[in-house]
Amino acid sequence: MNIIESLEWRYATKKFDPSKILTKQQVETLKNAFNLTPTSFGLQPIKMIVISNKELQEKFVELSYFQRQVADASHLLVLCIENDTTSEAINAYFDLEKEIRNVDEDVIADFRKQLIGMYENKTLEDKQLSAIYQTYIVLGNLMTVCAIEKIDACPLEGFVPEKVDELLNLKSLNLKSVLLLPVGYRASDDVMNNLKKVRKPLNKTIIEIE
Amino acid sequence: MNIIESLEWRYATKKFDPSKILTKQQVETLKNAFNLTPTSFGLQPIKMIVISNKELQEKFVELSYFQRQVADASHLLVLCIENDTTSEAINAYFDLEKEIRNVDEDVIADFRKQLIGMYENKTLEDKQLSAIYQTYIVLGNLMTVCAIEKIDACPLEGFVPEKVDELLNLKSLNLKSVLLLPVGYRASDDVMNNLKKVRKPLNKTIIEIE
Repeated sequence: MNIIESLEWRYATKKFDPSKILTKQQVETLKNAFNLTPTSFGLQPIKMIVISNKELQEKFVELSYFQRQVADASHLLVLCIENDTTSEAINAYFDLEKEIRNVDEDVIADFRKQLIGMYENKTLEDKQLSAIYQTYIVLGNLMTVCAIEKIDACPLEGFVPEKVDELLNLKSLNLKSVLLLPVGYRASDDVMNNLKKVRKPLNKTIIEIE
Repeated sequence: MNIIESLEWRYATKKFDPSKILTKQQVETLKNAFNLTPTSFGLQPIKMIVISNKELQEKFVELSYFQRQVADASHLLVLCIENDTTSEAINAYFDLEKEIRNVDEDVIADFRKQLIGMYENKTLEDKQLSAIYQTYIVLGNLMTVCAIEKIDACPLEGFVPEKVDELLNLKSLNLKSVLLLPVGYRASDDVMNNLKKVRKPLNKTIIEIE
């Protein structure tokens, strides 16, 4: 299956088969794919919570307007932002870069100073919004990785983030939930399974300038 | 190369080789991948402009804080939102669904009404923000597709959207530019080419609850 066939194969799964569980290797792939997602300036102001606990997943149903996917899927991924992108976080990024790439401080000092200054000038709201954007990059990456790996997924914006934050005690971790992504296997009787994909024709969504 | 190796292979290309041009087939893949990107409720309130005109691409350099990638890359993708997600646009989606899936109006009538009502209650700013989120899903999808297809790419938030909108006369098309994605091939002397990828360790970005 080429990449376009894989993207045609995927769809927002409405009904998961609760008896089918992802392998440890598949979960490792999703974790690594999350961590390899490109982020703005490489700062990774995001975290992913990987839940495979049925009792806890059941509690998400009510918080997700009774969408059963959160409970029936093999694993529930919760994409979160860090509350703030602090100077400490930016310094930690550059320290990590120095360590991994074995570069001297003088090579990165100017950019370190510039980036910290840039973020100090942003409001907390702007920093959070920028981090939220990164969770959508993750979503795009992970849904495509799932399609390639023949893992079913259903992106969910429709849930009550404050209640999820409370349930997972995210405040104490300085995190906020942004998106849910149940992953697993489609149920054979999912009504959406055999429906054709609805997309505008290419000539309505793409403009070419040669 | 498995998907993780592909994601390890990619990086935000700082210098493209201007002599290397994507094949027509590769551009078709990117166009189809764009169009297959999942969007909120499937509404696709986004468009992609595919530029392969060196004279025009040169004009982007100044608007992108003199980042040469926009000119040197084989193609420049401009991810745009539609100014508004109108009731007409939502009606057009449902009409398309009826046509593609051959379903009767009574099957979708309730959801059509509900979704139009939901969007009528949103402010223009909220609708635009939601559309902006979709462009980041596209970005995540396309960067991964590029990695699989061995196409280099460099996501750019750093440009002046108003100037790009003016250059491409996007106002007349009811579009706003949000993100740039030059795509093509890395130059062999790109300084970033041989640098190790900087990522936090998995135990700092992922929380598992079993």
